[in-house]
Parts: sequence; structure tokens; C-alpha cells
Amino acid sequence: MNAASSFSAAAWQANASAYEAIRTMPFNAALADGTLSVERFRHYMIQDAHYLIAFGRALAVAAAKSDDPDGLIQFSQAATIAVVVERSLHVDFFTKFDVSPDAFKATPLSPVCHHYCSFLTSTAYAEPYPVVLAALLPCFWIYAEIGRDILARAVRPNPYDAWIDTYAGEEFHEAVRAVIATTDRAAATASPDTVKAMHAAYARGTQLEWMFWDSAWRMADWPV
Amino acid sequence: MNAASSFSAAAWQANASAYEAIRTMPFNAALADGTLSVERFRHYMIQDAHYLIAFGRALAVAAAKSDDPDGLIQFSQAATIAVVVERSLHVDFFTKFDVSPDAFKATPLSPVCHHYCSFLTSTAYAEPYPVVLAALLPCFWIYAEIGRDILARAVRPNPYDAWIDTYAGEEFHEAVRAVIATTDRAAATASPDTVKAMHAAYARGTQLEWMFWDSAWRMADWPV
Amino acid sequence: MNAASSFSAAAWQANASAYEAIRTMPFNAALADGTLSVERFRHYMIQDAHYLIAFGRALAVAAAKSDDPDGLIQFSQAATIAVVVERSLHVDFFTKFDVSPDAFKATPLSPVCHHYCSFLTSTAYAEPYPVVLAALLPCFWIYAEIGRDILARAVRPNPYDAWIDTYAGEEFHEAVRAVIATTDRAAATASPDTVKAMHAAYARGTQLEWMFWDSAWRMADWPV
Amino acid sequence: MNAASSFSAAAWQANASAYEAIRTMPFNAALADGTLSVERFRHYMIQDAHYLIAFGRALAVAAAKSDDPDGLIQFSQAATIAVVVERSLHVDFFTKFDVSPDAFKATPLSPVCHHYCSFLTSTAYAEPYPVVLAALLPCFWIYAEIGRDILARAVRPNPYDAWIDTYAGEEFHEAVRAVIATTDRAAATASPDTVKAMHAAYARGTQLEWMFWDSAWRMADWPV
Repeated sequence: MNAASSFSAAAWQANASAYEAIRTMPFNAALADGTLSVERFRHYMIQDAHYLIAFGRALAVAAAKSDDPDGLIQFSQAATIAVVVERSLHVDFFTKFDVSPDAFKATPLSPVCHHYCSFLTSTAYAEPYPVVLAALLPCFWIYAEIGRDILARAVRPNPYDAWIDTYAGEEFHEAVRAVIATTDRAAATASPDTVKAMHAAYARGTQLEWMFWDSAWRMADWPV
Repeated sequence: MNAASSFSAAAWQANASAYEAIRTMPFNAALADGTLSVERFRHYMIQDAHYLIAFGRALAVAAAKSDDPDGLIQFSQAATIAVVVERSLHVDFFTKFDVSPDAFKATPLSPVCHHYCSFLTSTAYAEPYPVVLAALLPCFWIYAEIGRDILARAVRPNPYDAWIDTYAGEEFHEAVRAVIATTDRAAATASPDTVKAMHAAYARGTQLEWMFWDSAWRMADWPV
Repeated sequence: MNAASSFSAAAWQANASAYEAIRTMPFNAALADGTLSVERFRHYMIQDAHYLIAFGRALAVAAAKSDDPDGLIQFSQAATIAVVVERSLHVDFFTKFDVSPDAFKATPLSPVCHHYCSFLTSTAYAEPYPVVLAALLPCFWIYAEIGRDILARAVRPNPYDAWIDTYAGEEFHEAVRAVIATTDRAAATASPDTVKAMHAAYARGTQLEWMFWDSAWRMADWPV
Repeated sequence: MNAASSFSAAAWQANASAYEAIRTMPFNAALADGTLSVERFRHYMIQDAHYLIAFGRALAVAAAKSDDPDGLIQFSQAATIAVVVERSLHVDFFTKFDVSPDAFKATPLSPVCHHYCSFLTSTAYAEPYPVVLAALLPCFWIYAEIGRDILARAVRPNPYDAWIDTYAGEEFHEAVRAVIATTDRAAATASPDTVKAMHAAYARGTQLEWMFWDSAWRMADWPV
């Protein structure tokens, strides 16, 4: 299969305007030029820590549903890494930006974080493997691209240098390419209905990525 | 167990202010006095139809996880009824309020409807039976109470008379009492950690009930 | 699609010798000629009651995973019926053949019954909808065919007349035809890999049907 | 909690005679004294390879359901290791004992292996976290104990030295102690009904361990 006909190429193309909206949204602009308020970054970090655990659980279900032992290894390792990254947030960023363990525990998932986590968990259990992969892919891929984009234009030094460097790292990008490859392989032998469901899941994940950053910018809380 | 010590009594009490917020929110006030715009009611009906299918699926998983054959019957019947009610929306209300089958198909789940459906599905698969029941309960119980409340104060005749009569019906209330009873039985033998998770699920469901009506009032769509 | 190219026609053909083995196995021969010992029938009834609950749970998961609201109704109703049939076993046969409620409770699932129930449950949760249907189908279809076959050749009166009449009834056969139709529809749009998995699940279910009757004949218990 | 009151201590005690039956069964006696036929060992290895993949998938679901991030890491790493061990079987033992990749692919799961895998998968998805752990525990613990027992009495040199050394290794025993500890922690806060279900799952897993070795000794295949 050439890149033009792959699921990932089609999905990226179909969601190009949503990606552009993410790339240019206030949160990421302010992150790049270093003007992002500590309050907003703190909100973001705390919700990201909540998110990573749910992301890790969904990855574990993807591992359980994988169509071969390679996928079982790939996604159980990814689940492990999600928790490792969550822990490094606590050690590296929560300390630096004054989020105490008690403050973290006292902060529940924001509505959008809860929405995104619920979407990943429900898809992981209720849908077939290729659709699970398509739901998980935006978080990997968009982060990788946004990371590189912000790295390229970041004003340095920047209070968020350490975060910016994390997601632009080569190790992360290698993992992302592997997830894209597995998703494309799954799509290549899936039925048209399943590929359609994959596109719907990918689009939903992309929307929720935008909403997650937007929620951090608005420091949104439950309305009731 | 007396009522005071039951899970349901405690959950209702803990979420009393959220219930009051639902009871007095603009959508329900306008529904009762008959001033609700057709556009808002249409938005609500379409999203309710989407919701009922996901609710039915979550009820089916609850049936699968039930701790005895009574629960298996109770929730597989409830799943059947959810689809029957969804179909009656199409026949009774979509026709009356000019929602064509094509218009329905072309209208995706709103963000809040998708959030609520994802929450029910993820809880149904990922959590133990008592927590699944607690997540499903607000939809039953709050609807029943709101239905009776609106019935009591509705300006008649009202363009939404038929809808108001549906949820205030005795048959629905009987089903709701049975779900409360099963949830209380499950809570009575659950561990403290599970009861805590039940309360969190019930509170989340209650918040999403408010957000669902609020979303219909705002006729909210995806931001990106 | 014509019958020759349907999944069900292909699956029946591929498992024809296993069906013939079931049709001619000692248990069914003895049931038809009325020489089956009460002990063996009792063993069979008790395990069937255990089985029906697990079958009902798997049907409920199939309902949850159905690809449209029709399937959600079809399989949540089938789940309800499985429990209703289980209850009628208690009322009609357990009484007649002296299986007290205490004796039933004291009798655990036999190894083969546990194997079959575990297979249905694991497939229901872990596999996509078409494969779930293929795993559930042998129980419906083989019972219907064996029922009619035994009815045609049964020596009458026969101590097991009431049981024989149950499975040869037109209502059950109509339900079976509907499950075949839904399975064929699901197969028609599934990928080749999924259809292959459907055939594997159907073959496994057929083997377990044979093993279930064989286990009743041997009145098999756990070896350790 | 002292050891005497822990779930694991109670479960081990309750299944002591089954463990003794495993310890003294022909397969393990012949393994220890080096008289086990290559055919039986080959059958065992092939089924063990099949089993490990299903075990890995069930561990991944356990990771997804874990009650804290530690459990998510513990069981996603265990899932990874299950596949790594499965691969080492191919590299180390399949080569040495002449099991070609084609021969492996052509050999389906035996009835008991399929039974055990189905039990783990169904429990993993359908049951709450503590019960999932209890179902997974016998495979860890009994292997560790049998490994040490065989090591202590093995006639050396023995054609199966390499296998014997694997399961008696300290690294494996450390992992087993960690799984016991997590299971005991989960049991400590579980409800009495859940602990009862944990004991049932542990006992079932223990029975299936015996049946797995017995099946290898009999080189059992599907009866139909």
C-alpha cells in the first residue's frame, strides 16, 4: 500500500483543518511564545496526568484485542509508558509548577478530560481492534506533530522548555510511527464498514484533542 | 435496610442541589409553560433518540453483568424498552415536529450526548455491576421525578403534552422503582470502595443529565 | 445473496459430520427411544439450566454490540427468553424429575458446561459482533435441528415427551431463522479475516455442543 | 494483615490437595526423572505457547481494570513478559525439540488449553478486578512452586534441564510474589461476595492447571 491510499494518510487529510485549528489555538500559541499563564499550564498538566492513566488503560485493552502477539507487546508496552510519563509529570512538572500531591488528588477530571477518557475507554471495550487503534491514534500523532511545530517556533528560553522538548523527542516519534503502521495494517484488511468506523473514531479523537487544549485555556470546570 | 441508609437515599440527598438545578433550568421551565421553541425541542428529541440506543446498549451490558437471573431479565427487558421508546420518538414526535428520517440521520450526536453515551458505555464495560447500576440510575430516576414535576405545573394545553405524559406514566415509575431497588440491593453487599465508586458514578450521571438539557437549550454543536 | 453463498450455508456444510455425530450419539438415540436413564437426563437438565444463564449473558453482550437497533432488540429479547426457559426447566422438569432447589444449587457446572459457558462469554466480550453471532449460532441451530430430528423418530409415549416438544416448536424455529438471518447479514459485510474467525467460532460451538451431550451421557465431573 | 488471614494463604490451603495432585501427577514425575517422552513434551510446549498469548491478553485486561497506576504498570509489564516468554519457547525449545513453525501453526489449541484460555479471557472481561487477579494467580504461583519442586528432585542431566531452570528462576519468583501481594491487597478491601468469587476463580484456575498437564500427558485432542 502506498502512503496515499493508507488509512492514516486519508485520516490526516480529512482532519487537516481540525489539526490547523489545534496548531493555531491560543493555548499552543501562548505555549510557544512563552506567555502561557502558569494557572493554565497547571490546569493542563493536572488534566494530562488524569488523561494518561485512562489512555494507558485503553492501550491495555488494545493490547488485549490485538490481532497478533506483536500488537500485544506493542500496546502493553505503550500502556506501561503512559504510566511512566504520568509519573514523570508528577516528579518533573508538578514540583516545578507547585502542584502538590494533595492539590492533584483534590482536582477531579475536567468535563472535557472526562469526555475524552470515557470515549477512549468505551471504544476500547465496545469496538473491534481496528477502531480502537483509530481512536487512540490522534493522541499519539497530533501530539508528535504539535510538539515539533511548537519546537520549531518556540521563543527560548521559555518557562515550558522541558515540556516542549519531551514531545518533540525522537523516541516518541518512533513510537508514533509504529502506531500509525499498526493502524494502517489493521485498516488494510478491515471491511469498508470498519474503515468507516475507524474514520469516525479518528475524527472524534481529533475533535477531543482540540477540546482538551481549549478546556485548559478556559480552565473549564463542571457547570453543575 | 431502611430508606435512610440505602444507597439511593444517600445518592439523592448528595445530589439534591444538582436535581434542583435541573428542575429549574430554562429548558424545563419553558417546557412546562409551553414556550419552548420547536427548534430546541427538536434538538432535544434527536439527541434523546441517539442517547436511548446507547442507553439500551449499556443496559444490555448491565444485564450481562447482573449478579442473578432476575437482574439479567430486568435489564435485558429494559434494553428492549429503550429501543422501543426510541422508535416511538420517531413515530410520534419526529413526525409531529417535522424531523424527517434523513434529517435525523444527518444529525450526529451533540458533544454532551456523545459524552454521556461514552460515559455509560465505558462504565458498563469497565466497572463492576453495582457501579454500572449507579451510572444508569440518574437517567431513570431524574426523568421520572422531572416528569412528575413538570406534569404538576404544566400549562395546558401545551405543544409538548404528549411528551410530558410519557415520562409521568405509572408504568415508567414502576420500572424506576425496580431499578432503585436492584441498585440498593447491589450496594448493600458491596465493599466501601465500590459504594464510593457508585456515588461518583451517580453524581457524574446527574451532572450529565443537567448538561444534556442545557445542551438542548443552547442547541450546542461541536466547536471544531 | 443466495443461500449457497451465505455464511450459514457454508458453516452448516463445513460442520456436517459433527452434526451427524451429534444426531447419532448415544444420548440422543436414547432420548428418542425413551431408554435414557433419569440420572443422565437429570445431569443434562441441571447443566442446561447453568448453561442457559451464561447463554443469556452472552446474548446480552451481543445485544450491546449489535450493529443496529434491530439487533439490540433481537438479542436483548433472546437474553430474556433464555432466562425464561431456564426458569421453566426448574418449574416443569426439575419438579417432575426430582431435582430439588438445594440439589441444583449444590451441583456446580460440569467441566464441559464451564468450558462452553467460558467460550461464549469470552467471545462475547473479546470479539467483534459478527464473531459473537457465529459463536452463539450453533446452540440455536443445532438444537432446532436435533429437536425436529428426535421428534420425527421418537418412540411415544416417552418419559421425555415434554422436553422433545419444546425444542421442536415453531416459535423456537422462527427465532432460530431470525438469528441465522442476522448472522448472515453480519457476515455479508465483514472482512475475509472476520468471516474466517466466524467459521472458527461456529466450528468451536458445534464441537462444544457434541461435548455437552457427551458429558451428560458420561455424567462427567471435575477430575480433581 | 498477617499471612494466615490473607486471601492467598486461604486459597493455597483450600487447594492444597489439588496442588499435591499436580505435584505428583505422571507428567511432572516423568519430567523430573527425565523419562518424559519427547512427544508429550512437544505437545506441552505447543499448548503452552498458545496459552501464553491468551494469558498475556488476560493480563492486559487486568492492567486495564487495575485499581491504581501501579497495577496498570504491573500487569501491562506482565503481559509483555508473557509474549516474550512465548517467543523464547519458539527460539529455545521448538528448535531443540523439532517443532517447526509450520507444525506449530497447524496445531490448534487442545480442548483443555482452549478451556483454560476461555476461562481467563471471560473472567478478565466479565468480572471485577479482584476476581480477575484470583483467576490469573494459580498459573503464576503453581508454576513457581512446581518449578522449585521439580528442580529439587530432578535427575540431572535431564533432557528438560533448560525448561526446569526457567521456572525455578529468582526473577520469576519475584514476579509471582508481587502478583500474590497485589491480589491480597485487592482481597483485603473487597466485599465478602467478591472474596467468595475470588476463591471460586482461584479454585477453577487450579483445576485447569492440573487438567492442562494431564492433557499433555494424554496428548489429548478434540473428540469430534
